[in-house]
Amino acid sequence: MGPGIPDARYGDRTARAQALLTEHGVAALLVGVGADLRYLTGYVAMPLERLTMLVLPAGGRPSLVVPRLEAMAAAASPLVRAGRADVTPWDETDDAHALVATQLAGTQLAPVADDGRARVLVSDRLWAMHVLGLQRALPQAEVGLASELLRELRMIKDADEVSLLRRAAHAADRVVAQIAAGPLVGRTEMDVSREVRERLLAEGHELAEFAIVASGPNSASPHHDATDRVIRAGEPIVLDIGGSMDGYCSDTTRTLWLTGGNPANGPTPEFRRVFDLLRDAQAEAASAVRPGVACERIDAVARDIIATGGHGPDFFHRVGHGIGLETHEDPYLVAGNGEALRPGMAFSVEPGIYLEGRFGARIEDIVICGPDGPDVLNESSRDLWVVSG
Amino acid sequence: MGPGIPDARYGDRTARAQALLTEHGVAALLVGVGADLRYLTGYVAMPLERLTMLVLPAGGRPSLVVPRLEAMAAAASPLVRAGRADVTPWDETDDAHALVATQLAGTQLAPVADDGRARVLVSDRLWAMHVLGLQRALPQAEVGLASELLRELRMIKDADEVSLLRRAAHAADRVVAQIAAGPLVGRTEMDVSREVRERLLAEGHELAEFAIVASGPNSASPHHDATDRVIRAGEPIVLDIGGSMDGYCSDTTRTLWLTGGNPANGPTPEFRRVFDLLRDAQAEAASAVRPGVACERIDAVARDIIATGGHGPDFFHRVGHGIGLETHEDPYLVAGNGEALRPGMAFSVEPGIYLEGRFGARIEDIVICGPDGPDVLNESSRDLWVVSG
Repeated sequence: MGPGIPDARYGDRTARAQALLTEHGVAALLVGVGADLRYLTGYVAMPLERLTMLVLPAGGRPSLVVPRLEAMAAAASPLVRAGRADVTPWDETDDAHALVATQLAGTQLAPVADDGRARVLVSDRLWAMHVLGLQRALPQAEVGLASELLRELRMIKDADEVSLLRRAAHAADRVVAQIAAGPLVGRTEMDVSREVRERLLAEGHELAEFAIVASGPNSASPHHDATDRVIRAGEPIVLDIGGSMDGYCSDTTRTLWLTGGNPANGPTPEFRRVFDLLRDAQAEAASAVRPGVACERIDAVARDIIATGGHGPDFFHRVGHGIGLETHEDPYLVAGNGEALRPGMAFSVEPGIYLEGRFGARIEDIVICGPDGPDVLNESSRDLWVVSG
Repeated sequence: MGPGIPDARYGDRTARAQALLTEHGVAALLVGVGADLRYLTGYVAMPLERLTMLVLPAGGRPSLVVPRLEAMAAAASPLVRAGRADVTPWDETDDAHALVATQLAGTQLAPVADDGRARVLVSDRLWAMHVLGLQRALPQAEVGLASELLRELRMIKDADEVSLLRRAAHAADRVVAQIAAGPLVGRTEMDVSREVRERLLAEGHELAEFAIVASGPNSASPHHDATDRVIRAGEPIVLDIGGSMDGYCSDTTRTLWLTGGNPANGPTPEFRRVFDLLRDAQAEAASAVRPGVACERIDAVARDIIATGGHGPDFFHRVGHGIGLETHEDPYLVAGNGEALRPGMAFSVEPGIYLEGRFGARIEDIVICGPDGPDVLNESSRDLWVVSG
């Protein structure tokens, strides 16, 4: 077996979450399918419409409310296996939201909100069908977002989590090299995108979530969706790929230039100039990572360099996002986020420069804030990949 | 190019949705990333935390509110390309929920709800972070679920949608046959599950969403998550696989029995008896499909047969779910759903029998309600696949 999270850690995490609930006067956390559930229980449920929910009261025993056909799967989850939570199955014709309310009936729903209502927090990505259902089933509660408290836990990765992120990053690095080895010229973006997904799986990802293959003028669209455009020699590709491996996400971007084997089709001087500016900005921003530096400062380091180079308006997204069990999570490296970096935070550093209708470029690494500076997980070259294609 | 949805259809769909809004006195639909958005606009956005939202007022022009870095991608979507919607980009430090409220400022938010508030409907799978953000930004509105109205459109598949579902079903059928060809014995469930995902992609799926490989006693857990259990000869595997192809979902289940090449390791008489009962139930339920029959009736047909055979309590989930741009969507074939089947409805028919700790079996087809009876999309054998493995 590869690296992983020991079963006992899930009980530690739920206990820490309950301590935060008590400290902040929140009655309960209600966690649906997704990263929060996996973080707290180790349970990986299918993202389907039947309600699966960890009911975590500030005091008292956690319960996993699950559809009956998933009761056996839930019972095999680390938190339940370790005897730290019960499974409460519901049947197809039951009202699952009412069942959650019943689970909370013994819980202190002490009024703590401004309007005298108790507070419960739901996972940030809980679907509207469940949010509205819970609001109806718990009229005495004010509903907020779980990230208010859980971000404090999930933002700081422990050594096992860093190992998992590093392993996923290296798998993605290998796929970048495999794709850059070609062939690329003459194929459609969609075909190459499909190959990226297949290779992510072959390199050990269980999910190949995205595979941006943005060729020629499409490289100026940061979140370009691969099309049937045929890739040509003498143009760039922005390759932004990622997925998850044992739950932990990869996300890396490299910019390629395709010569088609003809040196005369090399990068134009203008593209080179833009890319070198971007390369500096990305390197300086990553180098600026250390404890105590504000998130927005990393953004500003990259932005100032790109603006000084005359391309300020062409870098129109934040420099990075946290990463872990979700591709995008706290902390966000964006103007206005004055939060200080702390050891164990994991995030992307990914400035880009985009000239609409012409071309674009982006470089993205996953970086851990180490005790003394950055720990850059990706190891593939950050230079322009000038390849035959 | 393969089959697809003509661009012009998206404008027809938004117009039909607006007519439903007017008819039901709803001020606006607010549709986040996902199947509803794809259905109405053809736009396939990445499911990330930045708000992407179709603002569809009952009267007036639709607008796609998107993060600036996705403005180019949104502009290339069929509805916008056809001139039927505008793109409204927001910047990283903007309040996107407030922007949606601004978009609705010119809309009649006429009070229609019981408490005198206007109604807006949000997509059923919109994340809590956006549901709560919109509730704050639109305090004068009561928030409901989009499926209330959109189910009327999405439930009835047109000929192009049926073609797409059929193509996805056939791709999944091929993967079942490839997996059944082995090797299987001696490998872990997880390894086979990974192979299923790779093969779904190789057969043209853009997403390999799930690959249940439930071997031996694990076959009694309907939504078993593949583990590192090693598959052996002389036991069954429930193989339940699917994903999406041009957005439309596949979902098929077949039950295999592995002999390891030794006829003495064939299915036990008890397993045979259970499987034959299941086979009858599935066939009779699928045969009962025709316009006017209630959804719950299809469930009851399978359930009565299994109960008469003495396994009523061992079939503890509904018989099926609708399918289309989502793996599970309306209509649900479940006790209590008296809705009549109509031509063009698409759904699974998938009874199962599960003996905890021992074994289980399930058979699943995707079926279209045709004008005179069932149109079963899957074409692979529904018998027990007795294979060497």
